[in-house]
Amino acid sequence: MAINTIKWKNNRVILLDQRLLPDKEVYRSYRDYTKLALAIREMVIRGAPAIGVAAAMGVALGAHWVKGKNFDREVERTFTVFAKTRPTAVNLYWALERMRRVYAEKRSQGVDSVKRHLKEEAQRIFEEDIATNRLLGKFGAKLLKNGSHILTTCNAGALATAGYGTALGVIRAMKESGKQVDVLVNETRPYLQGARLTAWELKKDKIPVTLITDNMVGYVMQRNSLDAVIVGCDRVAANGDVANKIGTYMIAVLARKHKIPFYVACPTSTIDPKCPTGDGIPIEERDVREVTHFFGYPIAPRGIRVLNPAFDITHHELISAIITEKGIITPPYSQNLRAHVRHS
Amino acid sequence: MAINTIKWKNNRVILLDQRLLPDKEVYRSYRDYTKLALAIREMVIRGAPAIGVAAAMGVALGAHWVKGKNFDREVERTFTVFAKTRPTAVNLYWALERMRRVYAEKRSQGVDSVKRHLKEEAQRIFEEDIATNRLLGKFGAKLLKNGSHILTTCNAGALATAGYGTALGVIRAMKESGKQVDVLVNETRPYLQGARLTAWELKKDKIPVTLITDNMVGYVMQRNSLDAVIVGCDRVAANGDVANKIGTYMIAVLARKHKIPFYVACPTSTIDPKCPTGDGIPIEERDVREVTHFFGYPIAPRGIRVLNPAFDITHHELISAIITEKGIITPPYSQNLRAHVRHS
Repeated sequence: MAINTIKWKNNRVILLDQRLLPDKEVYRSYRDYTKLALAIREMVIRGAPAIGVAAAMGVALGAHWVKGKNFDREVERTFTVFAKTRPTAVNLYWALERMRRVYAEKRSQGVDSVKRHLKEEAQRIFEEDIATNRLLGKFGAKLLKNGSHILTTCNAGALATAGYGTALGVIRAMKESGKQVDVLVNETRPYLQGARLTAWELKKDKIPVTLITDNMVGYVMQRNSLDAVIVGCDRVAANGDVANKIGTYMIAVLARKHKIPFYVACPTSTIDPKCPTGDGIPIEERDVREVTHFFGYPIAPRGIRVLNPAFDITHHELISAIITEKGIITPPYSQNLRAHVRHS
Repeated sequence: MAINTIKWKNNRVILLDQRLLPDKEVYRSYRDYTKLALAIREMVIRGAPAIGVAAAMGVALGAHWVKGKNFDREVERTFTVFAKTRPTAVNLYWALERMRRVYAEKRSQGVDSVKRHLKEEAQRIFEEDIATNRLLGKFGAKLLKNGSHILTTCNAGALATAGYGTALGVIRAMKESGKQVDVLVNETRPYLQGARLTAWELKKDKIPVTLITDNMVGYVMQRNSLDAVIVGCDRVAANGDVANKIGTYMIAVLARKHKIPFYVACPTSTIDPKCPTGDGIPIEERDVREVTHFFGYPIAPRGIRVLNPAFDITHHELISAIITEKGIITPPYSQNLRAHVRHS
């Protein structure tokens, strides 16, 4: 498989433009960190772990190309710009925090040295993300029996990470361990990450996949054709409440009704011990045109009122287990999440 | 309000082409009954009661323009063609049954007389549908308090009927009785009847309406911003199970979880006493291109497997009440539905 979601090359950041998939595979090169930040906001790249990697590379990019005399002020501005790109995914703040620590530790060694260390740290975050996904994939794959039919939502795959995936990482690991797996993905309006990205990614990997619209999830569960649900996640609160793509909550409620296990797959960097419950997670509201227009074509009457929350909160009681690179976390989450974060 | 969903004029059937709404308001005139049948299949007109009216007018149209010498054989063919248009809505078979009864009773009076009687019966079905909707609207409006926030799905409005609506009939009747009402509608993929039709219809009627995607229903319920759900319906089984637009089941499950009343609004012609449970209702599978393409533009990888059931079944235990022109039917449905159908 060759999915290059994000790459550092010749002191530039290269992104696969996910807005154009699956129709076109276009790579964009960023030298200006403000343009890279805009690309995150406009969803050229998306997915909590991938946003973290992009922001880390963005800080290294900003530092590398600083032109003005005041190096520190410029780097500080870079941190600020990336912190404002997307509010829900905590991996963003986690990655920026790691970059900030390196900056503080190495600043005394001079500008050239700190630039180099920032690049190295961004690259480490990139590589660790893939390693982490492979680890959590292996843990997850053990939970699931051969021949499972699995529903996933949105895209928690190679495209949402540095390159292997969280929910789709588990599915890839199942395949690598010789288990048959059949995936069902809901299209995930308004941005269609399920139809455009997950279906594309799995097809490329020759993993069987079937596409449905978001409102068919109940129908599929009624027909007893699912063994498990696995989703990625943008932030886990200290009590185990999970923020993920809009519609995740609805799937979790239906899974519980139909007694289907509901798993969340994420690196421990997604856990936010400072956030006591899901109520404390900010939910990004995006442009209403994502809902009212389709590739510029209007699908609703002009001037209609619209809601467009990008995420929702799934209560921890609906979650069967959280699959991380450190192992499977089960309820009670308040206690068991703390244990995992403390040792990280 | 001037929504002319369907009309008989100069021995032709005029349909508002609902596939082009809300962008364009185009009326099409049908003289050839086979083309009208195709228009039903291709969703120029849709909605269970409207399909019934269209099929009745279609039989009258077929009979009126019979060219061949064998009048009876031609009329029989007309019945067969319309019976095959859409399998889920029972109103279709109900309307054809009424036309067949008139045909049998009046055939002996000669061709000209039976043609006239068929036209009159189709017009009666049309007019009764509006009267029925107004009646059920009044019953429904009494259930709902002033200032209610109501979720509806798909389009169960003037566009789905001869001209007033079932679920939207209740909402119109609330407004006419002086009650404030605020409507939330989910877009209803893949055909977007919520975004394209319901939003358009309510905006035209100056009833406040907010559009969401199908996967935002749980989010909205979590925020405690709904007082009731009202949906239309394509068939009610004898035990109260309901077939309606795909996604209805999911909304009903969520409504139950959040203790929000879930109402079904339909004429008693939608009740099918011959169908014991929802398992006996055929679910139409439609073309996968409805899911994979948007106005011709591909939104999924080529050759992807797709499900496209047009309806799902909501178990009777999830339904708070069924609103009909004969009054509000509450559980136990097996018993109370029988009482209503027996006297019809």
